[in-house]
Amino acid sequence: MAYDLIGFGESMIRLAPPAFHRLEQARSLDLKIGGAELNTAVGIARLGRKSTWISRLTDNSLGRLVTNHAREAGVDTSHVLFTPEDRVGLYFLEFGAAPRASGVLYDRKNSAIAAIKPGMVPWDSVMPGSRWFHVTGITPALSATAAEATHEACAAAKRHGLTVSYDLNYRAKLWTGAEAGKCMSELMRFCDVLITTEEDIEKVFGIKGNSYEEAAAKVNERFGTKKIAITLRENPLVWKNTWTAILWTSTKVLRTRSFEVEIVDRLGAGDSFAAGLIHGMLDSDDQKGLDWGIAMSAIKHSIPGDFAWVTAAEVEATVQGGGLRITR
Amino acid sequence: MAYDLIGFGESMIRLAPPAFHRLEQARSLDLKIGGAELNTAVGIARLGRKSTWISRLTDNSLGRLVTNHAREAGVDTSHVLFTPEDRVGLYFLEFGAAPRASGVLYDRKNSAIAAIKPGMVPWDSVMPGSRWFHVTGITPALSATAAEATHEACAAAKRHGLTVSYDLNYRAKLWTGAEAGKCMSELMRFCDVLITTEEDIEKVFGIKGNSYEEAAAKVNERFGTKKIAITLRENPLVWKNTWTAILWTSTKVLRTRSFEVEIVDRLGAGDSFAAGLIHGMLDSDDQKGLDWGIAMSAIKHSIPGDFAWVTAAEVEATVQGGGLRITR
Amino acid sequence: MAYDLIGFGESMIRLAPPAFHRLEQARSLDLKIGGAELNTAVGIARLGRKSTWISRLTDNSLGRLVTNHAREAGVDTSHVLFTPEDRVGLYFLEFGAAPRASGVLYDRKNSAIAAIKPGMVPWDSVMPGSRWFHVTGITPALSATAAEATHEACAAAKRHGLTVSYDLNYRAKLWTGAEAGKCMSELMRFCDVLITTEEDIEKVFGIKGNSYEEAAAKVNERFGTKKIAITLRENPLVWKNTWTAILWTSTKVLRTRSFEVEIVDRLGAGDSFAAGLIHGMLDSDDQKGLDWGIAMSAIKHSIPGDFAWVTAAEVEATVQGGGLRITR
Amino acid sequence: MAYDLIGFGESMIRLAPPAFHRLEQARSLDLKIGGAELNTAVGIARLGRKSTWISRLTDNSLGRLVTNHAREAGVDTSHVLFTPEDRVGLYFLEFGAAPRASGVLYDRKNSAIAAIKPGMVPWDSVMPGSRWFHVTGITPALSATAAEATHEACAAAKRHGLTVSYDLNYRAKLWTGAEAGKCMSELMRFCDVLITTEEDIEKVFGIKGNSYEEAAAKVNERFGTKKIAITLRENPLVWKNTWTAILWTSTKVLRTRSFEVEIVDRLGAGDSFAAGLIHGMLDSDDQKGLDWGIAMSAIKHSIPGDFAWVTAAEVEATVQGGGLRITR
Amino acid sequence: MAYDLIGFGESMIRLAPPAFHRLEQARSLDLKIGGAELNTAVGIARLGRKSTWISRLTDNSLGRLVTNHAREAGVDTSHVLFTPEDRVGLYFLEFGAAPRASGVLYDRKNSAIAAIKPGMVPWDSVMPGSRWFHVTGITPALSATAAEATHEACAAAKRHGLTVSYDLNYRAKLWTGAEAGKCMSELMRFCDVLITTEEDIEKVFGIKGNSYEEAAAKVNERFGTKKIAITLRENPLVWKNTWTAILWTSTKVLRTRSFEVEIVDRLGAGDSFAAGLIHGMLDSDDQKGLDWGIAMSAIKHSIPGDFAWVTAAEVEATVQGGGLRITR
Amino acid sequence: MAYDLIGFGESMIRLAPPAFHRLEQARSLDLKIGGAELNTAVGIARLGRKSTWISRLTDNSLGRLVTNHAREAGVDTSHVLFTPEDRVGLYFLEFGAAPRASGVLYDRKNSAIAAIKPGMVPWDSVMPGSRWFHVTGITPALSATAAEATHEACAAAKRHGLTVSYDLNYRAKLWTGAEAGKCMSELMRFCDVLITTEEDIEKVFGIKGNSYEEAAAKVNERFGTKKIAITLRENPLVWKNTWTAILWTSTKVLRTRSFEVEIVDRLGAGDSFAAGLIHGMLDSDDQKGLDWGIAMSAIKHSIPGDFAWVTAAEVEATVQGGGLRITR
Repeated sequence: MAYDLIGFGESMIRLAPPAFHRLEQARSLDLKIGGAELNTAVGIARLGRKSTWISRLTDNSLGRLVTNHAREAGVDTSHVLFTPEDRVGLYFLEFGAAPRASGVLYDRKNSAIAAIKPGMVPWDSVMPGSRWFHVTGITPALSATAAEATHEACAAAKRHGLTVSYDLNYRAKLWTGAEAGKCMSELMRFCDVLITTEEDIEKVFGIKGNSYEEAAAKVNERFGTKKIAITLRENPLVWKNTWTAILWTSTKVLRTRSFEVEIVDRLGAGDSFAAGLIHGMLDSDDQKGLDWGIAMSAIKHSIPGDFAWVTAAEVEATVQGGGLRITR
Repeated sequence: MAYDLIGFGESMIRLAPPAFHRLEQARSLDLKIGGAELNTAVGIARLGRKSTWISRLTDNSLGRLVTNHAREAGVDTSHVLFTPEDRVGLYFLEFGAAPRASGVLYDRKNSAIAAIKPGMVPWDSVMPGSRWFHVTGITPALSATAAEATHEACAAAKRHGLTVSYDLNYRAKLWTGAEAGKCMSELMRFCDVLITTEEDIEKVFGIKGNSYEEAAAKVNERFGTKKIAITLRENPLVWKNTWTAILWTSTKVLRTRSFEVEIVDRLGAGDSFAAGLIHGMLDSDDQKGLDWGIAMSAIKHSIPGDFAWVTAAEVEATVQGGGLRITR
Repeated sequence: MAYDLIGFGESMIRLAPPAFHRLEQARSLDLKIGGAELNTAVGIARLGRKSTWISRLTDNSLGRLVTNHAREAGVDTSHVLFTPEDRVGLYFLEFGAAPRASGVLYDRKNSAIAAIKPGMVPWDSVMPGSRWFHVTGITPALSATAAEATHEACAAAKRHGLTVSYDLNYRAKLWTGAEAGKCMSELMRFCDVLITTEEDIEKVFGIKGNSYEEAAAKVNERFGTKKIAITLRENPLVWKNTWTAILWTSTKVLRTRSFEVEIVDRLGAGDSFAAGLIHGMLDSDDQKGLDWGIAMSAIKHSIPGDFAWVTAAEVEATVQGGGLRITR
Repeated sequence: MAYDLIGFGESMIRLAPPAFHRLEQARSLDLKIGGAELNTAVGIARLGRKSTWISRLTDNSLGRLVTNHAREAGVDTSHVLFTPEDRVGLYFLEFGAAPRASGVLYDRKNSAIAAIKPGMVPWDSVMPGSRWFHVTGITPALSATAAEATHEACAAAKRHGLTVSYDLNYRAKLWTGAEAGKCMSELMRFCDVLITTEEDIEKVFGIKGNSYEEAAAKVNERFGTKKIAITLRENPLVWKNTWTAILWTSTKVLRTRSFEVEIVDRLGAGDSFAAGLIHGMLDSDDQKGLDWGIAMSAIKHSIPGDFAWVTAAEVEATVQGGGLRITR
Repeated sequence: MAYDLIGFGESMIRLAPPAFHRLEQARSLDLKIGGAELNTAVGIARLGRKSTWISRLTDNSLGRLVTNHAREAGVDTSHVLFTPEDRVGLYFLEFGAAPRASGVLYDRKNSAIAAIKPGMVPWDSVMPGSRWFHVTGITPALSATAAEATHEACAAAKRHGLTVSYDLNYRAKLWTGAEAGKCMSELMRFCDVLITTEEDIEKVFGIKGNSYEEAAAKVNERFGTKKIAITLRENPLVWKNTWTAILWTSTKVLRTRSFEVEIVDRLGAGDSFAAGLIHGMLDSDDQKGLDWGIAMSAIKHSIPGDFAWVTAAEVEATVQGGGLRITR
Repeated sequence: MAYDLIGFGESMIRLAPPAFHRLEQARSLDLKIGGAELNTAVGIARLGRKSTWISRLTDNSLGRLVTNHAREAGVDTSHVLFTPEDRVGLYFLEFGAAPRASGVLYDRKNSAIAAIKPGMVPWDSVMPGSRWFHVTGITPALSATAAEATHEACAAAKRHGLTVSYDLNYRAKLWTGAEAGKCMSELMRFCDVLITTEEDIEKVFGIKGNSYEEAAAKVNERFGTKKIAITLRENPLVWKNTWTAILWTSTKVLRTRSFEVEIVDRLGAGDSFAAGLIHGMLDSDDQKGLDWGIAMSAIKHSIPGDFAWVTAAEVEATVQGGGLRITR
């Protein structure tokens, strides 16, 4: 089967107390599923394309729960590896309000994907005919063997002619900036499209610019990456942000409108930006990618959970500038 | 029994996912009852007056649910027609956050009220002694026979000396602007007070002005309507709007303060404006009507559901300019 | 793609008040998805086989919700027809307690599947390579064209060599016993396996026996149906039933153990019986089919919603006679 | 306005932790409204008759909440007295499971009804034309002035030709058996129909018999009460009881079937028995009263809250012996 | 046992409808525990110090519920007096949105603490070795004997060398400004630190200044109070306020940063300010007290319930100026 | 501080889908805290005695959550060790209905308590003056160092003159029967009171008898244990069990009544039996211990969560044979 996008990484069960309660106050937890690459695969599927998500999960109720949610959102899970070993990763989320930021407490150690090794995923049977491979900086950070498996996957993707995109997604709980920089730098030679923030470029690669454009240009200089998307968030409050992005290419820097977003749930916003961006690029239209990426992720801020439960029609309407009156 | 207000129209069961979830994410739906004329009748009852709401409902749990809620909120339902036929209309509501507007999905086709026909409601026994008849542009839009029944009701109201108010409430899902214009224009000769927005005046009657005042004046010119109230909403965000209104009369244009409203639930806000307006007019005080209408509907934005669960005392305090400190 | 089972019919959004409330008391409704053939397709998928469910749905949030749930539970939905027309069927469910039986209120008129017509589903491209076709007496009851489309589907199934099973599932709200009898009798010539109750055999075909075995034998006599499964429920209470089944074949009558079931949710129990039965028959083991059918549906009674969220391992353990101690 | 039944007494806000939690575990409480006479008035209204409930309530959100619920269930509240003084009574309810009985913690002291005095309710304008007056032993137990007001009401009822029924409803938290006996004995001369249990007859009047019939006969002997209904409950468990009743009359003792009830919520069961009984007696059919009383209250056990959300049709079907299969 | 802080006063069960519903709409109520002095004791405990809370409660499920919550949050309850008499106070809370302020409806009359009398609490065994005594103007307002008991407690605190702080907390429902002024003025001679608002200074003491500083200086002038903290709230909306404070001392006026707070729940914010302030003062660092007080209470606005579920680490980070990005 | 009981072991966060949903269906999880020794310590505290629970927890929101709940229920937590390392154990619980047993899925690997080592807990400062030490077979099963730490604790308990009780509590997921047998056999020399089931005696020690009494006698023979309590459960259904126990002593075998229990939540029932038993033994009354143990744990079956939220008064009433009528 040929996919428009193949994502590779971890998804966790996300548990969050309702109604802004702290974890210490919780008597119930809302359950969602989330993981950077899966979130992007969901976004691609919601826009009407075929996507698959590849991972390794423990074969119990919790592992099945993860794939059930992926399928519910339209993502193929037929290549997920199930093992009787290990555990399913969890993360706990507290929603905040200014001056209290939202907070995440990870409990993902020893999850099944951390024990993944090269050779486990039959890339050569999965990739042929597919168009795009997407992975984030979280996957190689999970363990040394996961880093090797990521390397194997990226190399296979290039070998089979897929476009490769990375979201740097630096996670300080998983590794140091130096470790991330070393590992990601090696992987950059496979990377066609880099999606990141100015902050992560500095933390991972130690690259700083006087502007977003300059920082992107320096990344291109060092690694030869042809397209670099940078999302820009202003956080005046927890419940309201300004959100936009740029796309640096060797020939020009594309811009798009910014959105004032009322925030229900920020988690997964960057991943849905990646989905919109890739969707446009699959149509060979970088500007569309940038516009759809930022519109789709602006909508994502209004949706509970990590997944972008949008339709192509409403993303398009938002790009066109839909109003805020009730739609009937 | 003599009523201060008789409302005539449809009410539906409203189903909305909690906590900003999309319908596709819903595992439970919050249930409320709403319908434009019922909402106004509720507002009138909450202010201490007698109101009745007349409709046609299927005689099952869902139909009874609708009248139960009406009675709970203080509205008389003794004239509602129950039939074993047809169905109870539903609408599904998604609460949004910028840039995603809230959205309504109607499932109201073939509801019992759509099959209403002239002669079904014994207006000549219901209306004598009552003071005001209120209907919106939704009722005649439901079906050809519903339009005839609306005509019959308005004519009866005039015959029995009731003041008649319309809220244009154009619904594009039910009919075209042209159809609405044709039907409503015929009904306008019964109308003493028109409540609407600048936008609906244009869509339904094709009337445009350089200002709200001019638009209203043109409506008066065409139909002879003596009082025209226009609500004005600015939507910078989904969770915060600015809200005010004017009342055009042949002798002067009345204005009132504007409110910055934090929005819990916008649905029914216009209907509670109508209630406050009519309440003041029943006291022969147009300025009170305008002031109470806008204050009452400003409060309504803070209340879940279509009904304005207010008291006369708190509307009055809001008109006077109550503060935002906790009331103890 | 080749499927172990193809199901064809309607699925509805099911709305039920929580905690034994009556509909008139409801302030929220729990949402599930259910439909006889989908329920069976889910059961087949949960046992590790490939199943697809074919239907016609309105292309809106509610229609997508139905296919999302089907996919979540492992069922392929790639052949579902989406239309901008019509509506998604609903049913409202009240859970009872003795002496109040649970009750269902259907609101399914004018759903998209009722407008299905022969020629709409490309059976000749869907069926080749697949093994089993399953439909219930509900599908042809939805409309005259739906009955024609069912006929077309059954004929195609036989043409492509699929085994065909029916569950009679007589619904008095949809048609009379006479209408059902006429229609189903015509369809019986395609039927290899009939799944039903003694009561429905009498209501639909007017066939009565002195025993289950005799009733089944008479069905075989009239229609030549080779295998007839009859489920037997004793209802001493709403929360506790005794549940078993027999399988009549021309050579012998198979029996299985009976279960005392504590009832969380009976809906879909018969459909999961069908799934277990078909699963065994696909393994050419009728006794396994009967044993798994009754064990799987016994477990189903303990699971909220129409779907049988079981695993093959636990059905097998239940067949073997697992105990009631906490499993750790 | 003429009522089929006038009830007089207290209603409280009932707060109960969900899902069998103890009060000490509660983080939320489910809110219902309940009070013996209101519960009976609701039952009468649900059977299609006109009933009103008279009480005294504090004029705040909580007081309005009580009348809102009464109206929602069909009861007239136009004669309720509202006062700025006092408070609204509350009771806290814990649902149990064997061997833990369900428990009630009252917080009703100083409620507005306890301060009621003779002369406050204009009985002479309320009662004319009405048919039945119902009160329980709780109302006079609330305070000395409430006892006087009850006396006044009963005397007025007899004066205006209403039938008077009492439910003894002895509450040990409110008064001693001796106090109850003294007060109720004085009131018995107004009583046409007594509804009670064998246990309460002994506690309040010190009357014991070798059988239900004998106890009733002794009550008749002492007070001349013409009809005495006694409900009989067997409590083998908390979730399952056997429930029946007898009606003693001077000419014969009527019996009815017994029901095995699965118990969702027992509160208000006796009050709905009173409603069914009175309903039949209003039709001059004692046997119907007894049959409907016990069937209606059997159904009540399955319904959350104190109110009997039934329809006349389903009570009738239960009297006829409806089965426990799902009604569709 | 020696405590860093001893609090003395009432705590109530707080009942609030979820999701901005009005009380009249409530079908369930969220339960929290709150009371000014307990809230402050909780804040002190959350910062890692020992605190005890002293009160009088009815010995039933509701009374135990109060102490359970106090202990859960880290406060010692071993000195609470339990009595079989009286009742546990309640308050009902409605969350608002502009222009509807949040509202509190008290139902605290005749609570066990209102019946407290001098001599009931063995202060001479509780206080030795402890450092700080905190009480608010609510405790003496509860009853004449509660005022005497407060006097006794303050005198004992001074005798045992504890620092004494008051929060004026004027409650118009409990007493008039004149009554409060008379009582509090007498108590002021025991007071080392006064925490209040400009508004309450005027209402209780009739003291007005041209500035916060001047008002504080006048309080010092009249009563000799050495330290006076004044919190300053700007309420442009219900969901967003600006929040800061000053600390007047005889030698200088300390200031701190102001916070823009997104408001989940304002209740208890002032009490957590007191906790932070006292925490710093216990470290003999007034500026730290002011900074921590305002930061801790700024965070409190984001937390449901009256208690400040913070950690010392996060208060410190907020004082340092933590950002609003998700913490991972 | 001197404790009546010191418990030592793990507590986990327990997450369970509401309303009988399977984990795969869960969209929210109810959160409770549970752990065998903590559950027993809670039971002891609820009966009015002092208990402390000792464990090792990660110092984050989840770790604090565990101690918060313990304190809420009255247990001292001042000796719990907090570490920045490791994680807090979890377990997932599915509530079943016949024929589906309830199920537990543990996710407790690498919890902080598993890394406990001898020397970490200062037993010599905690134990002096205390009366009873309780541990279960789960604690030594957590890791080799945890087994050593258990050994150290038991030895210290004997040294300080505490009575030592074990609950065998065999967990097949943690170790084999052989491993358990070896470890527990070594620990048995410290054990004064053994609490277990016939099944666990066989699995852990390989001891079988023709009767409960004989099995107990053989345990005594092998290890010299003076008192052996055996709980006896009959599981005819998931929602209803019969529950009793015996207490074997060298001089006689004590028996108590059996309870028919309606089951809300079985978890922790055995632990509350231990609490009641120890409570009686602390009063030197073995029969009281047995009677209270079985009554308290019978009530526990009716309470959600692992903790026995009872009072001494209601346990005593249950021992005396309280009825099942509503307590008012």
